[in-house]
Amino acid sequence: MTKATQLLGISNAIVDILAHVDHALIEKMGIVPGSMNLIDERRASEIYAMMGPATEMSGGSVANSVAGFANLGGSAAYIGRVKADQFGEIFNHDMRSLGVDIRLAPAADGAPTARSHVLITPDGQRTMNTYLGACTELSAHDITAATIGTPQVILLEGYVWDLPEGPALTRKAIEIGHAQGAAIALSLSDSFCVERHRASFVDAVGNGVDIVLADEDEIYQLLQTDSFDATLAALKSYANLFAITRSELGSVIVQGDTLITQAAHKVDALVDTTGAGDAYSAGFLFAWANRYPLAECARLGTFCATRVIQQLGARIEPGALLNYR
Amino acid sequence: MTKATQLLGISNAIVDILAHVDHALIEKMGIVPGSMNLIDERRASEIYAMMGPATEMSGGSVANSVAGFANLGGSAAYIGRVKADQFGEIFNHDMRSLGVDIRLAPAADGAPTARSHVLITPDGQRTMNTYLGACTELSAHDITAATIGTPQVILLEGYVWDLPEGPALTRKAIEIGHAQGAAIALSLSDSFCVERHRASFVDAVGNGVDIVLADEDEIYQLLQTDSFDATLAALKSYANLFAITRSELGSVIVQGDTLITQAAHKVDALVDTTGAGDAYSAGFLFAWANRYPLAECARLGTFCATRVIQQLGARIEPGALLNYR
Repeated sequence: MTKATQLLGISNAIVDILAHVDHALIEKMGIVPGSMNLIDERRASEIYAMMGPATEMSGGSVANSVAGFANLGGSAAYIGRVKADQFGEIFNHDMRSLGVDIRLAPAADGAPTARSHVLITPDGQRTMNTYLGACTELSAHDITAATIGTPQVILLEGYVWDLPEGPALTRKAIEIGHAQGAAIALSLSDSFCVERHRASFVDAVGNGVDIVLADEDEIYQLLQTDSFDATLAALKSYANLFAITRSELGSVIVQGDTLITQAAHKVDALVDTTGAGDAYSAGFLFAWANRYPLAECARLGTFCATRVIQQLGARIEPGALLNYR
Repeated sequence: MTKATQLLGISNAIVDILAHVDHALIEKMGIVPGSMNLIDERRASEIYAMMGPATEMSGGSVANSVAGFANLGGSAAYIGRVKADQFGEIFNHDMRSLGVDIRLAPAADGAPTARSHVLITPDGQRTMNTYLGACTELSAHDITAATIGTPQVILLEGYVWDLPEGPALTRKAIEIGHAQGAAIALSLSDSFCVERHRASFVDAVGNGVDIVLADEDEIYQLLQTDSFDATLAALKSYANLFAITRSELGSVIVQGDTLITQAAHKVDALVDTTGAGDAYSAGFLFAWANRYPLAECARLGTFCATRVIQQLGARIEPGALLNYR
């Protein structure tokens, strides 16, 4: 018997191409260090040609959360578009090997599977250049009662709004999800993404999104606030559940008058901060789906984020929970 | 002006697919832990389906040596067959980004680019399952005066003898190379490979190969000796230059009556022994091509091997020589 799906992720299915570079190369490429840039195929070829030898692994923000959720022992499913090419095969293999149910077959035609060229400078900072490829062809037609099923929670990412049919397909996912009794969670992706789509995100948060996952920059950008106190005050007028991560300041959970603060955990050796937010979302939603109290959701989110920054790679490894508590 | 090519590698062009697994899975797959197995496409699919999430990076024994040689500052070229697919693109990109001159265009048809499924157990041991794919279609027709050019040294690997046209194409490479004034080096790959092709290797060493690169197991298997002393005695009757690596016992260079012993260097933190032999070959041949004395060739080989086992990944990083001496 198949375990009922707890989490369904809908997001950009991306393979990361990682390489170590120096600051001079980033400058020569004309890229702002630490930024996430959307690039076209021509620019992708240009950047790839300038990069040194690389390592490839499955990535994507919400896809990382879904993989982490599965590795915590949760039952997860995924909707994202890859092409039937080698990167698409890699992406689906990696998800399936964790027990994630892939809901869409790889596309026989169209753009190739998405890749993000991740440039890592000696200070550990990552600059991302993402060619969305096949992701951009994810369509509202791919979102149906059959592909959604009956998950406890659907996790969307802000980046999906960058797709031509992103607003339509997320709206459809929210409607079908609610009709099936699912809660809707939205990860705000990054502050530039929020800047690009603020009106749509405000609308979604007011109409259908139940849980908002964000870091400080993202929530400031969404609410147009400029301090944490102002943000907390603004959040009180919302009915949604907000989980706000604050790096070394821990995280804060807000739901109406409820305010829960969770301190950061001790970090023995910081290896790579990539995926901290995605791991937090995985832990938070795993606890939430298992009906833990909110304080415990925050604590498990923090535990997962703390683990992932002390390892290479953005996904929580299997068995992470063995060390919990 | 293009710098004259110092090293030309001819070998299997392989992308490594690496995943951490436990011993139980290796057993379930029916594989001998630590072995290098040649597998067909069906078995490759089977093993890949049983593997967890993986990381992909360019690999292949002599290809690693060629990449390392380039990273030491040497001028290198490469002959190996990849298909015009995403793994082929990755392989060529990674080589070219180091300045390696790729002599064959990716094949438009035939088998897909080769991949080696590398299973890493918690003790750090690697078990390799290699689907040779496009490599097997490397042909004697690909070896011409034009693709060989005029390198100082041509590096062949024993694994090439596993290809249908391997014996013919290596023979052709030796003949063209010698006619162009190149020295021929042969890396013996692994002891099982030597077992498979011993007669051919003995013939090649007697007819055309100038430099033999091997570890103890490989040279014992080639000479059918069972002790290091017996091996040294047997080597005296050969005219070839032998570089024999002995792990923590360092390495020994033998050429007729000349015997040079090089102690191992201190290892601060062993990370991953993969690629130690390939890195040794890179350093040894770089020094040799630059006409360093033999003792210095051994010392640079050891330096490179010592570096590569203290990092993740089998290829020497750029700028490694900055820390030499």
